[in-house]
Amino acid sequence: MATAIRLCYSASDIGRIREGLGADEVRRLIRKVLELGHFSVLEHASFTFGIEGISRACSHQLVRHRMASFSQQSQRYVKMTGFEFSIPPSIEQDEELVRRFRQAMEEAREHYSEFINAGISAEDARYVLPNATETKLIVTANARSLLNFFELRLCTRAQWEIRQLAQLMLEEVRRVAPNIFATAGPCCESRGYCSEGTMSCGRAKPLKIVEDREVNQGLT
Amino acid sequence: MATAIRLCYSASDIGRIREGLGADEVRRLIRKVLELGHFSVLEHASFTFGIEGISRACSHQLVRHRMASFSQQSQRYVKMTGFEFSIPPSIEQDEELVRRFRQAMEEAREHYSEFINAGISAEDARYVLPNATETKLIVTANARSLLNFFELRLCTRAQWEIRQLAQLMLEEVRRVAPNIFATAGPCCESRGYCSEGTMSCGRAKPLKIVEDREVNQGLT
Amino acid sequence: MATAIRLCYSASDIGRIREGLGADEVRRLIRKVLELGHFSVLEHASFTFGIEGISRACSHQLVRHRMASFSQQSQRYVKMTGFEFSIPPSIEQDEELVRRFRQAMEEAREHYSEFINAGISAEDARYVLPNATETKLIVTANARSLLNFFELRLCTRAQWEIRQLAQLMLEEVRRVAPNIFATAGPCCESRGYCSEGTMSCGRAKPLKIVEDREVNQGLT
Amino acid sequence: MATAIRLCYSASDIGRIREGLGADEVRRLIRKVLELGHFSVLEHASFTFGIEGISRACSHQLVRHRMASFSQQSQRYVKMTGFEFSIPPSIEQDEELVRRFRQAMEEAREHYSEFINAGISAEDARYVLPNATETKLIVTANARSLLNFFELRLCTRAQWEIRQLAQLMLEEVRRVAPNIFATAGPCCESRGYCSEGTMSCGRAKPLKIVEDREVNQGLT
Repeated sequence: MATAIRLCYSASDIGRIREGLGADEVRRLIRKVLELGHFSVLEHASFTFGIEGISRACSHQLVRHRMASFSQQSQRYVKMTGFEFSIPPSIEQDEELVRRFRQAMEEAREHYSEFINAGISAEDARYVLPNATETKLIVTANARSLLNFFELRLCTRAQWEIRQLAQLMLEEVRRVAPNIFATAGPCCESRGYCSEGTMSCGRAKPLKIVEDREVNQGLT
Repeated sequence: MATAIRLCYSASDIGRIREGLGADEVRRLIRKVLELGHFSVLEHASFTFGIEGISRACSHQLVRHRMASFSQQSQRYVKMTGFEFSIPPSIEQDEELVRRFRQAMEEAREHYSEFINAGISAEDARYVLPNATETKLIVTANARSLLNFFELRLCTRAQWEIRQLAQLMLEEVRRVAPNIFATAGPCCESRGYCSEGTMSCGRAKPLKIVEDREVNQGLT
Repeated sequence: MATAIRLCYSASDIGRIREGLGADEVRRLIRKVLELGHFSVLEHASFTFGIEGISRACSHQLVRHRMASFSQQSQRYVKMTGFEFSIPPSIEQDEELVRRFRQAMEEAREHYSEFINAGISAEDARYVLPNATETKLIVTANARSLLNFFELRLCTRAQWEIRQLAQLMLEEVRRVAPNIFATAGPCCESRGYCSEGTMSCGRAKPLKIVEDREVNQGLT
Repeated sequence: MATAIRLCYSASDIGRIREGLGADEVRRLIRKVLELGHFSVLEHASFTFGIEGISRACSHQLVRHRMASFSQQSQRYVKMTGFEFSIPPSIEQDEELVRRFRQAMEEAREHYSEFINAGISAEDARYVLPNATETKLIVTANARSLLNFFELRLCTRAQWEIRQLAQLMLEEVRRVAPNIFATAGPCCESRGYCSEGTMSCGRAKPLKIVEDREVNQGLT
């Protein structure tokens, strides 16, 4: 990544550029492109995650990120009898709600098994499976796409489950690539302002877009 | 689209190219790029669909197509009390199975309402909603991406619901852009061979990949 | 686009949503997503441009925008004898430099013709053509991608020729879609800050990224 | 990659799937997805290339591949005085043509230096640089995108310079990932038919698209 940054502005060979780069210079170069927002060089590094224990409600959001590659356990081909599930924290904190939730899961399991036992295929029996049903994925994304993912999904306005997932993913990549991900996170943390406008949670002040009348006055 | 095809090989102005193109020539040019597989020009035309009455099982597959733009009714913000649902044909043809399926849907509706009434937010109550729950989307894709979508999702091996959706979408675009979509469909129909190898349904003969030992022998 | 914005948060049918949207509400909804940065709905509208009179130096930058579709006049297949060319303004303001520049173009034309006359194909003769050589393209991009293009290429730090092109393209789309493009432009104009950090031209104050030690302290 | 293939059809944990995969099984699984055309899993592996000694004529084609990441030596910021260049083989085989070509390059170098010496910036002086001028890039692409690149750019109809580049890149990746790239190449080599229709070079027989009247007759 650092070699690529340097290449753009250098007359030197790629090999020589690479040899000349010490750890401090690599760190400095990466911080610079992060600060300047020159993110394209971040695409040269990609990361692959094994993800388990998230719900299909969460995976439906996850696969909306198009700058990433997904392989997901298929409910068409894998029998989900006795499936595991996620419980929302708002439900988990109330014993009676948890009981009802578990009952709903149990009923879904029973319906699913009934259909399977009646000869219905997994791909059709799954129509009774709840959003809470656990799924597994292998996901690959480059550093640029991950920074965008963390910015969107670590925001307090993101849904709790994908926010938890994003936090775990960030911890993993920070361990192996601290220079790239040191400042990763929602706008309020990485850049000091809120990108959510009137829907801001208040942790940082939103930026407003400039009014029409002021637009393009200064362009020469 | 036809102007773009012609531009690549012409010394003329864009305006003059466009004026000189009659309906027959447009048809001929589009058929030629379809035959040659020079699909990039097909990206200049895009199509927007309003989609209703498909299940979340289907939409989870639909949004995997990354060369498209999706706006989907949110289960985080929209209350799904009394939701509608899709029934798989394999279940629909058996009265007893339909009864059980409807009962499963009814139970899910009740659990959902209980959680909503207990003050749980829509985004958390939805964890009990089944895959069958209906959703709505507005989808935009260009002609190249749609041809790929039709090739994959009109195959007999595609899941029944997204295959039905693809068939309806193809009928719509064929009406407004017959030149582009005349030959759209799975490989077996548009190209006369099967792309599914050993998993072929048998409608057409699969092509095999050439064995290692023969590879690159002829490259000069 | 406005229908798509509304759909995400509505229990209503797509047709009914669309019917219920007056011009003022459309305007309000689009301004809201622009302010919130919820740009995905902007992908439903795309725009096709016929571009002539730009240099290959400019088109090499243009085609780096990957969220767009390009059809370009081919130097492999179209004979460039007597090609037209762009002159940089810094050269154009000095008579003697213009004379030298025109002489360089004339020499390139002659070499090109010599190779063509010697039976060399256009695709090989073009190796002597200068970056200044004019080219033609048909380009399609959606509104989200165009906003990104205008942000990057209308910055004072962008190269003069692609900046001129971006300005002309913005004028065109503003005419047909004023709601979407009213505030389009570089960060300094549309959002009031500079995204170029230490390389800022000074029209607006850059935002700094937050230092490591402060990162993620507040995340709960 | 093999773990991802297996995950889609397995009820097992990702860790256990991975542990259970021997070299033979990995090879078998990868050959299977290549044969079935289930290419999405190929996106989990990406490859980064340092490329030197190609012309800007070649790089303009290279950067048209949008499923890849590019960092290129900038002619805006790097002085190109005394630039190196590519010579087309059709010119190289004739002594007199080579002499003329070298003269054209020498003239371009002189004009470039004149402009630089007159105080013109590199980004403007470069307008006189020829397509033949050498450039350097760092390019990253995943295996799926590379297979597509090799299919298009190893075809005999591809331009000679990008075809040479593709051949060198294929040799590199075949060394480190022989399972994935064993059968890579143009259609005629990897699949035994030609994808270029009426423009075929004749190495293999083209497939024809099916005529309208036969289309979609069989779809049930």
